[in-house]
Amino acid sequence: MSDEISSRFDLHLDGLRPYIQPTPIIESEPLNALAGCRMWFKCENWQPIGAFKIRGALHAGLSLKDSGLPVNMATHSSGNHGQAVAYAASRLRGKAFVVMPDNAPRVKVEGVEFYGGQVTFCRPGQASREEALSKILAETRATPVHPYNDTAVIEGQGTCAWEMLTQLEHCPDMLLVPVGGGGLLSGTLLACNMWSREIRVIGTEPAGADDATRSFRSGKRVTELHPDTIADGLLMQLGEIPFRIMMEHAEDMITVTETEIINAIRLIVKYLKIVPEPSAAVPLAAVMANRKRFTGKALGIILSGGNVDPEGLGQLLLS
Amino acid sequence: MSDEISSRFDLHLDGLRPYIQPTPIIESEPLNALAGCRMWFKCENWQPIGAFKIRGALHAGLSLKDSGLPVNMATHSSGNHGQAVAYAASRLRGKAFVVMPDNAPRVKVEGVEFYGGQVTFCRPGQASREEALSKILAETRATPVHPYNDTAVIEGQGTCAWEMLTQLEHCPDMLLVPVGGGGLLSGTLLACNMWSREIRVIGTEPAGADDATRSFRSGKRVTELHPDTIADGLLMQLGEIPFRIMMEHAEDMITVTETEIINAIRLIVKYLKIVPEPSAAVPLAAVMANRKRFTGKALGIILSGGNVDPEGLGQLLLS
Repeated sequence: MSDEISSRFDLHLDGLRPYIQPTPIIESEPLNALAGCRMWFKCENWQPIGAFKIRGALHAGLSLKDSGLPVNMATHSSGNHGQAVAYAASRLRGKAFVVMPDNAPRVKVEGVEFYGGQVTFCRPGQASREEALSKILAETRATPVHPYNDTAVIEGQGTCAWEMLTQLEHCPDMLLVPVGGGGLLSGTLLACNMWSREIRVIGTEPAGADDATRSFRSGKRVTELHPDTIADGLLMQLGEIPFRIMMEHAEDMITVTETEIINAIRLIVKYLKIVPEPSAAVPLAAVMANRKRFTGKALGIILSGGNVDPEGLGQLLLS
Repeated sequence: MSDEISSRFDLHLDGLRPYIQPTPIIESEPLNALAGCRMWFKCENWQPIGAFKIRGALHAGLSLKDSGLPVNMATHSSGNHGQAVAYAASRLRGKAFVVMPDNAPRVKVEGVEFYGGQVTFCRPGQASREEALSKILAETRATPVHPYNDTAVIEGQGTCAWEMLTQLEHCPDMLLVPVGGGGLLSGTLLACNMWSREIRVIGTEPAGADDATRSFRSGKRVTELHPDTIADGLLMQLGEIPFRIMMEHAEDMITVTETEIINAIRLIVKYLKIVPEPSAAVPLAAVMANRKRFTGKALGIILSGGNVDPEGLGQLLLS
């Protein structure tokens, strides 16, 4: 680990510190016994907005502030990034304009509004989102903050893995993260690469939204995507910048079925006593479905968020 | 706060430290806004056995060890205390014998067995439990460790409030705890009384198991109890020692309905992103049902445990 490079992520983390505290890492002896490996779960469901995305939005907002620009940010988001931008703008005395699909979970819409973000609804789908966002950018002159295809956002997300590595007494053999647009994956790859080249980073995806896996295998970014999964945080298309970082540094990609995701949600509720949104259960699903591969290893798992309606969670637990 | 006295609970806490780490305290800005007060939740659902009871059992086991006795403990328990005794015995190189009603949640039975505890099933009800326990005591010569009517257990449970007070930057106005047999309430009362006489402690109970409230109001310990509540951790009869401590130090008792408990479970899942067993939601239920009384106050709430079957939680969330 080079001092010069390591200090960069330390600085990123220092920048966030007035606004968010380190999230806890938990493990469960009985769950480790069941999986046959040691798992540390980084609880980003306990961020103020209930998800890791607060890191990227704060880091992007701080970049604007450092440049002397007003912290007025606009974005489109199925939810967590929208809340993140709203939270960051409110803390940095700016404004947030958030385009959301009209089928976004209620808990996520309420989250954006609670932090003073202005919500504009659009039909689901990339085209409608971008059209609505263009209109808002023209009206407000706010700076667009892309949920994942943005280097400031990616570096911000990378502080999660970095923080985890500073908290753990032992270095994990591997880190596993869920992949939607690829912001968390690429940030994690940058952070781990700086910490120690020994750490393998594996991206995990629902089989019903496997564009990153197909991109990884073929070496070409897959842009045709008709996602079908309960993991509503992972519906986005892999971004160009995350794609390049993934091709450079990722160890592998693993896909999981919907049933495997639901079983992982049950395990998290039962053993970790915390509430995951479906996306957050995808890495554990990958471990449980590939136990031989991970036997005896020490795994860091980023539990990305906990924004799920109680009724939605109830249905998943009984399905 | 007297140094001489304060150091006693500090010592209790030091004794536990090799076996359990401090549990985190969390709060939710949106939930505070909804309740009209500030609430700090002490997350005992994250103890290794998923509940605060590990404190009392460890403290009782350490007392045996300090006395040079073998740490062989026997108890009856609807679940969490049983797991606690099993965990404590395994860590202190002793044995645990646990009598459990045959309708105990599966997750709690598995917990006892995971830590090497020997389970004996009996029919539900106080009489059957005590009969089965007597038999085991005769056979094994283990020391009985009562779940709550035991001063070592009570002092151990009190370390939870003490730890919370050492962690918080500001002293809460009030502490709210769930009451079953009264071990947590009485331990909390002793700890708070030593920390600062300014802190008011309020016990909270399901209306369907309100023996402590009726005892508090009448000044006589109610021993006739036919509990009917989803809060399966609070079915026990208030103990004689907890009763006396309650009469001496408690500010008040509040009862809540089953619907209020279920609504509080939903709020905890939605805003705190953690999994409470029904008993653990009782104090928040009391706050939400008595908002005027708590307006503007700073409240410490002991979130007592998280041992609930995923299916059971699913049913509660959809009921």
